[in-house]
Amino acid sequence: MSASYIQAPAAEMLELLEELSAFSAPGDGVTRLLYTPEWKKAQQFLLDRVRESGLRVYADSVGNVYGRLTGTRDDGKVVLAGSHIDTVVNGGKYDGTYGVVAAFTALRYLSSVYGPPLRTLEAVSFAEEEGSRFPLTFWGSGNVTGLYDGSEAKDCRDGEGVTLQEAMESCRLGDQNPDAPRSDISTYVELHIEQGIVLEQTETQIGVVSAIAGQRRFTVTVKGTANHAGTTPMGLRRDALAAAAEMVLQLERFAIEAGDPLVATTGRLETFPNTPNVIPGEVVFTLDIRHSREDELEAFCSSVASAFEEIAKRRDVALDITLRLSASPAPMNSGLRAELEAICLRQGKTYKAMVSGAGHDAQLFAPRCGTAMIFVPSRGGISHSPEEYTPPEELAAGLEVLIALLYKLGYEETDEDGLVPQNTKERWT
Amino acid sequence: MSASYIQAPAAEMLELLEELSAFSAPGDGVTRLLYTPEWKKAQQFLLDRVRESGLRVYADSVGNVYGRLTGTRDDGKVVLAGSHIDTVVNGGKYDGTYGVVAAFTALRYLSSVYGPPLRTLEAVSFAEEEGSRFPLTFWGSGNVTGLYDGSEAKDCRDGEGVTLQEAMESCRLGDQNPDAPRSDISTYVELHIEQGIVLEQTETQIGVVSAIAGQRRFTVTVKGTANHAGTTPMGLRRDALAAAAEMVLQLERFAIEAGDPLVATTGRLETFPNTPNVIPGEVVFTLDIRHSREDELEAFCSSVASAFEEIAKRRDVALDITLRLSASPAPMNSGLRAELEAICLRQGKTYKAMVSGAGHDAQLFAPRCGTAMIFVPSRGGISHSPEEYTPPEELAAGLEVLIALLYKLGYEETDEDGLVPQNTKERWT
Repeated sequence: MSASYIQAPAAEMLELLEELSAFSAPGDGVTRLLYTPEWKKAQQFLLDRVRESGLRVYADSVGNVYGRLTGTRDDGKVVLAGSHIDTVVNGGKYDGTYGVVAAFTALRYLSSVYGPPLRTLEAVSFAEEEGSRFPLTFWGSGNVTGLYDGSEAKDCRDGEGVTLQEAMESCRLGDQNPDAPRSDISTYVELHIEQGIVLEQTETQIGVVSAIAGQRRFTVTVKGTANHAGTTPMGLRRDALAAAAEMVLQLERFAIEAGDPLVATTGRLETFPNTPNVIPGEVVFTLDIRHSREDELEAFCSSVASAFEEIAKRRDVALDITLRLSASPAPMNSGLRAELEAICLRQGKTYKAMVSGAGHDAQLFAPRCGTAMIFVPSRGGISHSPEEYTPPEELAAGLEVLIALLYKLGYEETDEDGLVPQNTKERWT
Repeated sequence: MSASYIQAPAAEMLELLEELSAFSAPGDGVTRLLYTPEWKKAQQFLLDRVRESGLRVYADSVGNVYGRLTGTRDDGKVVLAGSHIDTVVNGGKYDGTYGVVAAFTALRYLSSVYGPPLRTLEAVSFAEEEGSRFPLTFWGSGNVTGLYDGSEAKDCRDGEGVTLQEAMESCRLGDQNPDAPRSDISTYVELHIEQGIVLEQTETQIGVVSAIAGQRRFTVTVKGTANHAGTTPMGLRRDALAAAAEMVLQLERFAIEAGDPLVATTGRLETFPNTPNVIPGEVVFTLDIRHSREDELEAFCSSVASAFEEIAKRRDVALDITLRLSASPAPMNSGLRAELEAICLRQGKTYKAMVSGAGHDAQLFAPRCGTAMIFVPSRGGISHSPEEYTPPEELAAGLEVLIALLYKLGYEETDEDGLVPQNTKERWT
């Protein structure tokens, strides 16, 4: 395969991306929340377009849409590629959708050029990943991988009181209802925009994801004494905001010392009573800490907690640190990573091994089957915004890499060392 | 005079204080906003009670209520004592009202024991000082001293759109309308709770105020780049909150270095977009800086601005510092201060010269006539709260000092050096 072969599929992919971006609620950018009319139209459009392309097409009970190329040596196992179709409110047209259109385009291209594969390939458009309508995330891939069993839908409500069950039933796409969770997926591949600035800043075309970072979220509450800003001498204050400011800076200092890929952020901070002439009596703020290694993540969080306690003691303020979210790092398959790097070298593309700081559907597959993620640059690192942008040639480059990997996994006769995930190796021989 | 003489007036004062605290809107503590039904009832109650006491009583056009003891050597000049009758929302019963009831009680006591004074004494209950209903402060004393000329009332509206003019007209208390501003006030004396913790912590009965601190308020805006908390390495961030945190701590460090009476506070801080997984792109916070000397205040503000600019430059964030309020320090009259200290010594009371960090009606009089302020302790330094409290014996001690000073100013034959304000000295001889 050479780059010249895929000018046609890249154009087709870009057209599909544009067409899907039209299915949006009013407002800036793209707003396509789970089980809304615009969401249903987008998945239905995809079903119709993929059916025309000759792939076998179906939807499952939660509204994930699949296109399937059954392998001639079908052993009941599937190589799955895709991403999610939903967006945040006023999001962009690339996040998730790019990986969906690339996967369907790749399968259509491979089928048209090479005919049926040896091993079964599927493309997927997951129903939901963002958590923007209902208070849960990964509803699409979560039902496939067993994170959910569907029972969550009855009691989960959106901001207007509609249950996930009701919303889902109003958006039935098909009656085909595969086993959930699926036990037939041997490999999962996801192509996605980086949503960060690293590839752009290093002028790199392809990010080969080594791991999706683990994450901890905490809520920190600092309680001092609210008092008159004019009548309370500096020496008699228990200023909750000054204490919190010291903690925010300590977090930043520790994170810089720890170095990449650790990131630590205070994104939300509330001051009470929040009045110019009153010394703050209470401050509540968040910590978002991520690293690709569980042990490093855990050690960092412990150091932060100790430092915060020392600050609180010295300043005589009360401190509470509550864990809100804990997600383990998801390492990508080393064989698939090596194959992606080999593909980039063959195709003359610049690439970079990198940690994904953002969460993706791929992290649910990583503990269960060989999983790979491919990144393309995000202009200015901007995402979850109408400003989200990746130039066509950079989107095409990602597609070229995806096609090559799916060709390797679906069409090649031999199973070279490191290509096929260890835990499914016997399936491929 | 000895302490035993004034058990009767202290009891009377405490009763009046309790009675006035009943004139409140529903809710915790006392809520008595300008020109509300409860405000009008309080001022009318005071008018009626003072009339019974034998003082000549009147109200002016903005609703300040006066009680007058005309001097036998009346030269058209007045020694005025008092404070304000309004409160903040859910305030206490001492702030302002204590100075009002003490002044009226002092005049009634002096009149009953010593008969008419040589020089005219007046007590005043100012209509408004707190700025809790309309977007202005000192409406009572400001109309007396010339800060306002009444024209402000037409365009000034409360939160519900009612103009100050309309509210004022619905609350007329009397038709006596003295010249505004008044040119007959030679001396102003205000007794007030400290609203701080200094007297309590130093176990001191009386604060002799040396100056009311000057004040600067600024709004500081820091603009960085909002970005994904997971995908943006520490080295590529322009975190507005981390920059603001560094500034908040720098402000505190400078203030501690400067030492008393300088105080500096960030009371309000807002983070945008204020989402746990987004690096803050903008932070807006306030500075409240106070000192009793104009030159020190000015120098401190300059140092802070320079330090903030250095932080902003180093962190590559945009900085805007906007001045919102500038009030000069108001020094109290040195002769009156010396007399207050002499009174404390004679009465065997512990006293302390101190700066008032809070603003008071007295600061409007200080540039125009000899002005004195007397503080009594605030339990725990708490004010503007239902928890505001000063024990009866400490309130009585303040009244004793006030009575002694008004006796000196109103009844004594001689004008000792330092007692009478320099700018009005000729009036007293």
